[in-house]
Amino acid sequence: MDQDHLRTLLEEVQRGAVPVETALDRMRHLPFEDLGYAKLDHHRALRHGLTEVIFGMGKTPGQVASIAVRLLEKSANLLVTRADDAIAAELKSICSEAEYFPLSGAVRVWRDRTIRGKGKIAVVCAGTSDIPIAEEAQLTVEVMGNEADCIHDIGVAGIHRLIANSERLMQARVVVVCAGMEGALPSAVGGLVSVPVIAVPTSVGYGASFQGLAALLGMLNSCASNVTVVNIDNGFGAGYVASLINRL
Amino acid sequence: MDQDHLRTLLEEVQRGAVPVETALDRMRHLPFEDLGYAKLDHHRALRHGLTEVIFGMGKTPGQVASIAVRLLEKSANLLVTRADDAIAAELKSICSEAEYFPLSGAVRVWRDRTIRGKGKIAVVCAGTSDIPIAEEAQLTVEVMGNEADCIHDIGVAGIHRLIANSERLMQARVVVVCAGMEGALPSAVGGLVSVPVIAVPTSVGYGASFQGLAALLGMLNSCASNVTVVNIDNGFGAGYVASLINRL
Amino acid sequence: MDQDHLRTLLEEVQRGAVPVETALDRMRHLPFEDLGYAKLDHHRALRHGLTEVIFGMGKTPGQVASIAVRLLEKSANLLVTRADDAIAAELKSICSEAEYFPLSGAVRVWRDRTIRGKGKIAVVCAGTSDIPIAEEAQLTVEVMGNEADCIHDIGVAGIHRLIANSERLMQARVVVVCAGMEGALPSAVGGLVSVPVIAVPTSVGYGASFQGLAALLGMLNSCASNVTVVNIDNGFGAGYVASLINRL
Amino acid sequence: MDQDHLRTLLEEVQRGAVPVETALDRMRHLPFEDLGYAKLDHHRALRHGLTEVIFGMGKTPGQVASIAVRLLEKSANLLVTRADDAIAAELKSICSEAEYFPLSGAVRVWRDRTIRGKGKIAVVCAGTSDIPIAEEAQLTVEVMGNEADCIHDIGVAGIHRLIANSERLMQARVVVVCAGMEGALPSAVGGLVSVPVIAVPTSVGYGASFQGLAALLGMLNSCASNVTVVNIDNGFGAGYVASLINRL
Amino acid sequence: MDQDHLRTLLEEVQRGAVPVETALDRMRHLPFEDLGYAKLDHHRALRHGLTEVIFGMGKTPGQVASIAVRLLEKSANLLVTRADDAIAAELKSICSEAEYFPLSGAVRVWRDRTIRGKGKIAVVCAGTSDIPIAEEAQLTVEVMGNEADCIHDIGVAGIHRLIANSERLMQARVVVVCAGMEGALPSAVGGLVSVPVIAVPTSVGYGASFQGLAALLGMLNSCASNVTVVNIDNGFGAGYVASLINRL
Amino acid sequence: MDQDHLRTLLEEVQRGAVPVETALDRMRHLPFEDLGYAKLDHHRALRHGLTEVIFGMGKTPGQVASIAVRLLEKSANLLVTRADDAIAAELKSICSEAEYFPLSGAVRVWRDRTIRGKGKIAVVCAGTSDIPIAEEAQLTVEVMGNEADCIHDIGVAGIHRLIANSERLMQARVVVVCAGMEGALPSAVGGLVSVPVIAVPTSVGYGASFQGLAALLGMLNSCASNVTVVNIDNGFGAGYVASLINRL
Amino acid sequence: MDQDHLRTLLEEVQRGAVPVETALDRMRHLPFEDLGYAKLDHHRALRHGLTEVIFGMGKTPGQVASIAVRLLEKSANLLVTRADDAIAAELKSICSEAEYFPLSGAVRVWRDRTIRGKGKIAVVCAGTSDIPIAEEAQLTVEVMGNEADCIHDIGVAGIHRLIANSERLMQARVVVVCAGMEGALPSAVGGLVSVPVIAVPTSVGYGASFQGLAALLGMLNSCASNVTVVNIDNGFGAGYVASLINRL
Amino acid sequence: MDQDHLRTLLEEVQRGAVPVETALDRMRHLPFEDLGYAKLDHHRALRHGLTEVIFGMGKTPGQVASIAVRLLEKSANLLVTRADDAIAAELKSICSEAEYFPLSGAVRVWRDRTIRGKGKIAVVCAGTSDIPIAEEAQLTVEVMGNEADCIHDIGVAGIHRLIANSERLMQARVVVVCAGMEGALPSAVGGLVSVPVIAVPTSVGYGASFQGLAALLGMLNSCASNVTVVNIDNGFGAGYVASLINRL
Repeated sequence: MDQDHLRTLLEEVQRGAVPVETALDRMRHLPFEDLGYAKLDHHRALRHGLTEVIFGMGKTPGQVASIAVRLLEKSANLLVTRADDAIAAELKSICSEAEYFPLSGAVRVWRDRTIRGKGKIAVVCAGTSDIPIAEEAQLTVEVMGNEADCIHDIGVAGIHRLIANSERLMQARVVVVCAGMEGALPSAVGGLVSVPVIAVPTSVGYGASFQGLAALLGMLNSCASNVTVVNIDNGFGAGYVASLINRL
Repeated sequence: MDQDHLRTLLEEVQRGAVPVETALDRMRHLPFEDLGYAKLDHHRALRHGLTEVIFGMGKTPGQVASIAVRLLEKSANLLVTRADDAIAAELKSICSEAEYFPLSGAVRVWRDRTIRGKGKIAVVCAGTSDIPIAEEAQLTVEVMGNEADCIHDIGVAGIHRLIANSERLMQARVVVVCAGMEGALPSAVGGLVSVPVIAVPTSVGYGASFQGLAALLGMLNSCASNVTVVNIDNGFGAGYVASLINRL
Repeated sequence: MDQDHLRTLLEEVQRGAVPVETALDRMRHLPFEDLGYAKLDHHRALRHGLTEVIFGMGKTPGQVASIAVRLLEKSANLLVTRADDAIAAELKSICSEAEYFPLSGAVRVWRDRTIRGKGKIAVVCAGTSDIPIAEEAQLTVEVMGNEADCIHDIGVAGIHRLIANSERLMQARVVVVCAGMEGALPSAVGGLVSVPVIAVPTSVGYGASFQGLAALLGMLNSCASNVTVVNIDNGFGAGYVASLINRL
Repeated sequence: MDQDHLRTLLEEVQRGAVPVETALDRMRHLPFEDLGYAKLDHHRALRHGLTEVIFGMGKTPGQVASIAVRLLEKSANLLVTRADDAIAAELKSICSEAEYFPLSGAVRVWRDRTIRGKGKIAVVCAGTSDIPIAEEAQLTVEVMGNEADCIHDIGVAGIHRLIANSERLMQARVVVVCAGMEGALPSAVGGLVSVPVIAVPTSVGYGASFQGLAALLGMLNSCASNVTVVNIDNGFGAGYVASLINRL
Repeated sequence: MDQDHLRTLLEEVQRGAVPVETALDRMRHLPFEDLGYAKLDHHRALRHGLTEVIFGMGKTPGQVASIAVRLLEKSANLLVTRADDAIAAELKSICSEAEYFPLSGAVRVWRDRTIRGKGKIAVVCAGTSDIPIAEEAQLTVEVMGNEADCIHDIGVAGIHRLIANSERLMQARVVVVCAGMEGALPSAVGGLVSVPVIAVPTSVGYGASFQGLAALLGMLNSCASNVTVVNIDNGFGAGYVASLINRL
Repeated sequence: MDQDHLRTLLEEVQRGAVPVETALDRMRHLPFEDLGYAKLDHHRALRHGLTEVIFGMGKTPGQVASIAVRLLEKSANLLVTRADDAIAAELKSICSEAEYFPLSGAVRVWRDRTIRGKGKIAVVCAGTSDIPIAEEAQLTVEVMGNEADCIHDIGVAGIHRLIANSERLMQARVVVVCAGMEGALPSAVGGLVSVPVIAVPTSVGYGASFQGLAALLGMLNSCASNVTVVNIDNGFGAGYVASLINRL
Repeated sequence: MDQDHLRTLLEEVQRGAVPVETALDRMRHLPFEDLGYAKLDHHRALRHGLTEVIFGMGKTPGQVASIAVRLLEKSANLLVTRADDAIAAELKSICSEAEYFPLSGAVRVWRDRTIRGKGKIAVVCAGTSDIPIAEEAQLTVEVMGNEADCIHDIGVAGIHRLIANSERLMQARVVVVCAGMEGALPSAVGGLVSVPVIAVPTSVGYGASFQGLAALLGMLNSCASNVTVVNIDNGFGAGYVASLINRL
Repeated sequence: MDQDHLRTLLEEVQRGAVPVETALDRMRHLPFEDLGYAKLDHHRALRHGLTEVIFGMGKTPGQVASIAVRLLEKSANLLVTRADDAIAAELKSICSEAEYFPLSGAVRVWRDRTIRGKGKIAVVCAGTSDIPIAEEAQLTVEVMGNEADCIHDIGVAGIHRLIANSERLMQARVVVVCAGMEGALPSAVGGLVSVPVIAVPTSVGYGASFQGLAALLGMLNSCASNVTVVNIDNGFGAGYVASLINRL
């Protein structure tokens, strides 16, 4: 993806070997990368900020491992989401620093622990069943260079506990809230803090929760204006956006 | 619906004019009411407890008025829900005591104001747009002989105001909560009080509120165990059940 | 959660060690519980009325057992819902009085059998497949101090059997009705009785029952005004609300 | 649509003017009707049995009238469904025997009133708002040569009235049941009678009735095995099938 | 469920031991069956016409067997739907005449093979994957005393085969059509025949078939007026209604 | 959008005024069009092939007219879809050749009537109510340079008429089929022809047609493998793709 | 909402007029605001940052005006969303600086134009029909003290124009993307930039767009990890969150 | 399915053994195939063009094998879709040339590799998880006599890679695009090329992807006019239609 073809062409123009019109014509047929847009990809690399991520679901341990080997050559940190015991074992065998978090199914290599975020990111969840998703968010937040403040088991039906934690919530620069069932917690948290709240509906619940649909709709209709929403169970996405915001 | 046919038959049995087996056989072909089950209907009348209700939507002013005339002969009170200006005008012309509440579209004749409920019924709503539904609940609660305590504009995103009203909420024997959008208020209220909470999802909202579906699902998935739910915008139903409970 | 911090502060104010304005300022930063709102939690404890409940689904036997041990120290009764054989075995090993009900997956410790409800609670179900949900409701109702009257296998298509049980239904102070498929039973029962009916849609059925959605929608649209609805398969919730009502 | 082409061809084969193989080849390219299948269409005409039907919705008065003129030339009876005042006026101007039923929006020309059905068809509806759909069913049933027995305002929540009408229901050879809201009436009727029940969900209701979806799902999940279902508000379809059955 | 109580009461009236008014009063409190309505249940028994049906899904082999033993005492025939290998084995052990049809999961005892239906019932299905549902319909139709004419593998996309079978279809008195995917076959068949068509959407398909929803909606919107619909995969229901119609 | 900037830069490189490395660097910051990719847009213009299209819905007559004026300067033909009387009037005032088709709401300027497609495109519709959508498809097909063969009023329930038209259908190179209600026609047509069939679900129907959803699902599940689907009521899209295919 | 009651109580404790235990007890019954939590509300005021917002939909011009008068006393800026001509006229009559934006239905009073955000916020939309929602986002962003860079009419099907604007997009600190139909633009933009993207599904489209549902689902499933989503048509919410982020 | 009956009849007409009218009458009762329409079926065979296809899902290895044996007698090529290891083993045992593709679950016998398509068919997919569906499309395209150009892993969020492949895309005569999650890739590809794009939504994703529904809706609402859609995961269907188009 270097720009050798383009440089060669320009040098030919420079020394008169290729006329300008011919050069213009050839440039139309050069592969895209040669025309200066490689920077797009470069930006992409920068954006991930030292951390590469592999979505493990539907990949074999071997596939994940071979991608991981390649990524770990140029990156200090690595996060594998939606992994399982087999993937985790394979990853540990190729990288002794890999840690496995079975609750969320994440594997993390966290060699560079520099803090890059400007403040704390609170990761809140409503019930113990939401903890796997909250853990995925927390691991993402940390591996991307942020301090995470995790507050578990705060429900809308227990306002008391919510208020008891309001000081901690107010000290965060961004808040991630994971909740299943009626998905009301982001509204309540959003009313307490003055920073962006990233809401993660979880598929926790039964019956008319419809695998997270009830929580998703609830969060999209939040009466708190500082709430935005990611996909059901997308703890990684919430942690990722929270990290982007926290670097601004 | 009297029992004359059955009495006549029994008298014929008594005086030997009809054998027992013949009587048994005839009884099988008597209309149902003659067989003692008229009491079912009687119970029904008792159950409505002095208040008759007409669902106005889809009826002409003339139809509503003619039903109303008949009901007011035997009942001191009358509630017409989902009425409009024309129905209200017609009803006022036949009954000077009829009051029209244009917000909820209810017309009420409230001649017997005896308190029959054992405690107060709190009628709570989340936003000003929920007031029409809350008003329908309140009017139902009152006309059925209860004291209503109306608390408007309490949102989950403003926990502060919710707690400020917690004393009032705790003094109610039953609570009706009307909320649109994410429908989270019943959970929060349910967590504060120890009495039954009747949740009314309202069709207030836009986009992914899907005309009250988001609120309905939210309430059905409430993490507070004392919450039950009625149909979207069914303020009357919530007020009716709350009144039944408050008489127990 | 005592109020020691606040008491100490007030004593300092009393003896002049801390000026009023300083006290006001400090109070703003005290944890919530110290400011008098601990009563909220206290109310919560009271509300559960001697019975603690654990939602077993998604918890390991060990987790359930450790919560149970803690709860049983201060509570005579305990209900674990959505448990399985492994959880039940673990619970029996720590508490010999634990009974396991494999149909509904409930485990119950029922040491204090005082009757606290003022009347009977009827628990009705439509078909034999609804019995697990009805059982969950019944166990809840009983462990919370009520007499349950269970009537199984009453369907809308067999009106005969429904009417044959109408006397029993009319003697209940609250009725819980569990039904899958078209979910029509609560309407029929609601038309017979004059007390609140808590309807539980069950996920029984196939095809267009859509795991209980048909029954849920049917119940929300009930033409009987005394019907309120809980989540699909939420026998516990129905039993809980019925118990709350029966104590009023 | 006569078979002239085919007859001509066969005559040419008969007199040796066309060899058999050529005839076989030509027959492959003859229009379909010439090959004896015109009887299909003939069956279709027979099937409608003296009554032609026009679906009025989305057609102009002029379009409906011109179709009606053509149909009335060969048919004694005509039914126009989903018409409006303008269509009705136009039809009356071309046929003095046309009757307009504004409730259901039907226009009927009923010149041949011969009874062709073998028994009575009961047309039952749950509430007054279902009457328009029931009327469409009744008009269809009658114009197709059946005696209709209309029973209005029988609800599942008023079992008493249902049983009071059970004798009439049991005398029908087919039953059409129209119901909105939870759509439970067909199950209850189906449990009382031993003949086929055609269920028509109506779009009557609000909120979670979702324009008839709740009633539709309820009817499809009916616990009575003798119930089949037609589209929401399709009174005509129910009446049509009931008539077909009643002629068998 | 005999009428002894009522007879005794009438005899007391006859001999003057109980006055008429007292008798009237007592009758109000007699259980329902004693009042002559036992005939309702009797009708029910008659209606099933010698064949008893057990819905096997969700029942243990033991439960099914014990119900079967009781039913087979008074009924020559028995149909168990949605059974599995274990249930079938259990049933064969208690009744040597039980036949198991593993495709549809039905077990049938067919001792009385009298033909009671007045004509043939055609059972049609679209693809080989629809055969299990069609088989359930066929077994029901046969065990209820009808001759079934089974036509498999006729699709809308192969009109040729449909027309090739049109004569057979036209000879049926009722037609049952099972189809998954787009569910278009009932419309095509309905256009060919002049008798009632019972459509059974099957859950066959993938992706946007949504487990039979696409077929269900297609059938409800059929442009053929002689089509009614039963629940997804409800072959039994279709066969049952077809049998009822065929006896008329 | 010319390439002047790039040419100038290359000339500077040619005459030595700008070193190669500087040129490479500047090229990274040039606007995209200057780098040779303008051809993308050029392709786009070519693709529309002499016909420009304006989607009229939600635009004012003035907005549509001003876009039309600009497009007609460089294009012989123009199609405006989803227009209304006001837009049509405005367009006629600026271009006397504009024709308005009120049924489909299309306005067409068709000055260049050269045939570019290689065969005929059949445009088929099921009922008269589907004609507006079929007309939109037909107008698109024609204005893009194809001969359209329109066949109206062919339904799945009238197989006879379908087969009567099979020869015409088999002569088309592409077939567009518009159908509402159960949307079964594309399957039947797809089974008759061996060319691609573009299916357009229409929003025609009522009740469980859910504004075209039933037809859409039916078409997506078509058992004919040569069927692809466009959005509900998207006659233009179907005509557009059919035209693309017909030029290949 | 001052703390007078609490101060008075503390002074009484200070001078010995009230014992500590009595004070503790009284504090439990003081209204919430007196206990130091008024700061919550204060935070809330701060959070809105000089700009008050009124949701106009469903309010009368008089209601909006009276709220506006009160808010404008303490706030330099005011935004009214979802207003109409009548509300706009009323607001202009009470505040001459009110500007009306009929496209989005917003009214804005923008007296304090201080820039508070740290960077630019790009507001992008896919088609001209999305402009009203984009305008609502832009007005919100501006009135909250940010510089908005509006880029209209960039679609996924015209990648060329998207890339042509990539430099502008890369200069934004936050990006708001409004798109209807398939809602794919946020993914494409998210892949180009390394900052948070707030996606707003719009209800633009027809047929299977289902009033914005297709766009909403598309955005929630975005393959770009920096995308979060707000409710359908919620331009205000997106602008609000973007402003919060831009102040961090 | 020969035409012997018809030929015999014509010969009898020819030699005068059967009069014309009798022949006409008999023809009405001949089976359909004898009347010349066998060509329909013949067309069908031709249409599949040397390749027979078996849908393996839900069939036993034995069933698939016996169909395969029969088809391979008259066809050089065979494609079995949705097979599994057992089916593949069975097929290999009966035909040594059978190749198994475990990713897509396809088995292919590809003995006749003649190229029949006029150009290349590009088969594009968005992510590695979409490869199984893309493979099914590719295998179909190839076995039907086309050259497939497979481009994997091109996402909307990586526009760079999309443009880098634009030359290859522009060289295809038809493009198949498989994408899950938000399903936006067909729009982006459709904007780059001027040929038909067949979009295949895949069930790849989680949460609000709802098993491919999000992708399906996105594709149906594509803003690129050259996109048509097939069922979720229907790689075969897309490949089939693409092949049909490529032969035109």
